[in-house]
Amino acid sequence: MNEKVINEILGGVIQTLVDQLKGEGVSLPTDCAVSGETIPVELSARHAHLSEADAMELFGHPLTPARDLSQPGQFLAKERVRLIGPKGVMDNVAVLGPSRGSSQIEISQTDARILGVKAPVRQSGDIKDTPGIILASENSIVGLEQGVIVAARHIHMTPEDARRLCVSDNQLVSVRLDSGRPIILEDVLVRVNEQFKLSLHIDFDEGNGSGWHSKVTGRIVTRQ
Amino acid sequence: MNEKVINEILGGVIQTLVDQLKGEGVSLPTDCAVSGETIPVELSARHAHLSEADAMELFGHPLTPARDLSQPGQFLAKERVRLIGPKGVMDNVAVLGPSRGSSQIEISQTDARILGVKAPVRQSGDIKDTPGIILASENSIVGLEQGVIVAARHIHMTPEDARRLCVSDNQLVSVRLDSGRPIILEDVLVRVNEQFKLSLHIDFDEGNGSGWHSKVTGRIVTRQ
Repeated sequence: MNEKVINEILGGVIQTLVDQLKGEGVSLPTDCAVSGETIPVELSARHAHLSEADAMELFGHPLTPARDLSQPGQFLAKERVRLIGPKGVMDNVAVLGPSRGSSQIEISQTDARILGVKAPVRQSGDIKDTPGIILASENSIVGLEQGVIVAARHIHMTPEDARRLCVSDNQLVSVRLDSGRPIILEDVLVRVNEQFKLSLHIDFDEGNGSGWHSKVTGRIVTRQ
Repeated sequence: MNEKVINEILGGVIQTLVDQLKGEGVSLPTDCAVSGETIPVELSARHAHLSEADAMELFGHPLTPARDLSQPGQFLAKERVRLIGPKGVMDNVAVLGPSRGSSQIEISQTDARILGVKAPVRQSGDIKDTPGIILASENSIVGLEQGVIVAARHIHMTPEDARRLCVSDNQLVSVRLDSGRPIILEDVLVRVNEQFKLSLHIDFDEGNGSGWHSKVTGRIVTRQ
């Protein structure tokens, strides 16, 4: 008796159970579990968020929007920075606006090895006890005492998306990617905000390791 | 009624079913399904396998073993090569021995982007219609017409391991990694050979994207 047969038997058992519970008027979250709605998947390249003071120090003026990003209100700045770590340097790194309270540098683990910094995997904004790095422009340098992270994967969505997908803000879910090297990402954080646009954000390592391309979508397979 | 309750109910149903089938003398592969045996996970860095002719052309002599690798009979050579692609160069790339019939270069997708080659994800040895690259030593260069791949993840194991894990040669399985960014890798190829040592091989993108470290283990969660 192999797993296929067992799965068929269990499939039948589960269906019978679901039918029976429905017959008893029990409300099941089958729309969520069964719908299989797909979520766009976007790759986040390395980038810097700068405090207003750090932007002024580096460029002598506030950030200049170059183009809008997929999340409403966010923009790619015309300005670029150089990251200088103990082991390596990365030029021409994107700066995203608008400015934040604290500067934060989001890189991949691959970048962290090249730069020589031990960047932990963190959600955006959680920069306590993270390593620093040196930022340079053509005119100035800024030494960050902290703020270098590998951004933890997360899904942006509106409250309406959350209702439809049966998840809530700060919930962890597992998401399957239908990519060239298919994987299930566990511990994906749900972030709900009226301003967000539905999108799963992963970094370049996760993208390259899973065979990501622009048509890849994700599907929530488990709600933790 | 939430998923936790449903899972508890289904768990009970499944246990009852398993007990009943066992009572009827049906042999179930529960040792495989339940044992949860862990598999060591090793990271494969970029490397070259060279044909005897290409090794002779590059170094003027056959490969010289520097140290043994985890898979019996395989060694890291003292020789190193430079990879020259249309967009970038990588120095000091490891060469593995012994020599093979055809040269084969295994890189990550990150490397492929840097070098500027469109390397497909392939199992080792499957190099038909793959891109070429230029190899250089201090003394010579060799132009490969094909052979550049991103190595598909796979598990090396002996026939005894395969029996214990209830899998067979060339089977695809899904493996969960208990890493810092936990994931389930689908489509992992099982490769069975008396000479192999039990180990899941992933590349640097998969390792960096999943928060791999040397203590990470994998567990087969689905047999496809």
